[in-house]
Amino acid sequence: MASSRKVLELFYDVVSPYSWLGFEVLCRYRHVWNIDLKLRPAFLGGVMQSSGNKPPGLVPNKFLYMTKDLERLAQYFKVPLSSPSNPFEAMFEKGSLTAMRFVTAVAEKETGGDAQVEKVSRELWMRIWSKDQDITQPASLIEAGLKAGLSASEIDELLKLAQSQPIKDKLKANTQKAMGYGAFGFPLIVCHVDGKPEAFFGSDRFELLAHCIGEKWVGPQPNKPSAKM
Amino acid sequence: MASSRKVLELFYDVVSPYSWLGFEVLCRYRHVWNIDLKLRPAFLGGVMQSSGNKPPGLVPNKFLYMTKDLERLAQYFKVPLSSPSNPFEAMFEKGSLTAMRFVTAVAEKETGGDAQVEKVSRELWMRIWSKDQDITQPASLIEAGLKAGLSASEIDELLKLAQSQPIKDKLKANTQKAMGYGAFGFPLIVCHVDGKPEAFFGSDRFELLAHCIGEKWVGPQPNKPSAKM
Repeated sequence: MASSRKVLELFYDVVSPYSWLGFEVLCRYRHVWNIDLKLRPAFLGGVMQSSGNKPPGLVPNKFLYMTKDLERLAQYFKVPLSSPSNPFEAMFEKGSLTAMRFVTAVAEKETGGDAQVEKVSRELWMRIWSKDQDITQPASLIEAGLKAGLSASEIDELLKLAQSQPIKDKLKANTQKAMGYGAFGFPLIVCHVDGKPEAFFGSDRFELLAHCIGEKWVGPQPNKPSAKM
Repeated sequence: MASSRKVLELFYDVVSPYSWLGFEVLCRYRHVWNIDLKLRPAFLGGVMQSSGNKPPGLVPNKFLYMTKDLERLAQYFKVPLSSPSNPFEAMFEKGSLTAMRFVTAVAEKETGGDAQVEKVSRELWMRIWSKDQDITQPASLIEAGLKAGLSASEIDELLKLAQSQPIKDKLKANTQKAMGYGAFGFPLIVCHVDGKPEAFFGSDRFELLAHCIGEKWVGPQPNKPSAKM
């Protein structure tokens, strides 16, 4: 069966709330669908600049809608997402470059899976998109790392590694790879079906994505015994 | 049971392909869910201008993605949607003001339901978003009207009515109503739940919408015996 497993790449940035929803759903489905999920930490700021896209929140009605939409989706997806008190500051002024370099360093050091990348990413999302906390300062990354189960010395090493040129280049490379698949925002989920990449933007194409890879969508909580549509 | 029926308003414009998908899905579900579907022809150009939103197609990667996304959705939703050869000309240069005034006139004249509004809207979508045909000229509206089952004399009357001030005002009023619900694009689906309006933008929130109104989403073809998720 291993050979028929479909590779799914998830390009994401912890600054993006819709990425969090997509991340949690795919982390749940990775043990339900016959897929090989690859987490691809990347930099949303780079994608927005390269594609010439503008953040949706700049249109007032879109911003209001997104706030409501995220609230409803968070509840339905059972993800403890809650908008920061100043989303513009959190997303655009402070940004996620340092955080995503840190996640990239975690990915680089980890062998035999991506359990640490998953946990660290989740802890960073918990900070910015649940608890309205900073993700730019070393102390913030240390706290996230500790909560994710890393030791203080591991985190210390990762913080140094995160500032190295190879890690900066790796994050750029992942971002460029997403651009190569036509990204203009995150999450971008790339399914490799019969050697052909099929890219899905956002966290609202899971039913279509499932259809495309020959799997079944049973809602955002596939592991619950009551999960049904 | 009639009193527990939920009113769903669908604000749409035939220039919008995602509106067509939403329209067909809701027309299918109107006999499956306990809802009272209200078709609200409106003017997308007005919404884009009032909200300050920019068409997604202006970002090259977004345009490429939309083309692919629509192709996949059309197939999955079983709607014969196909992009016009020059989408920019069709959508932005020619536009839909005349067509939507015509649909508004049909709605104004129709009594006891909205079967004609449904049919005329579908024929206009078939022209612009399936057969790459014009929807701005009187001859185009006449052809769509005839295919929708209207008589030549009815159409003649509707074409005159479509140019009257009351119809222009009615289309403006529908568009303003959508703005009042926070529109920044179409389709906008407004569910009235316990006297509170819940607005859903786009054709990718049906699962959430169903959850919100206490109904069940079983995919885009609820009437098919094989419909399952």
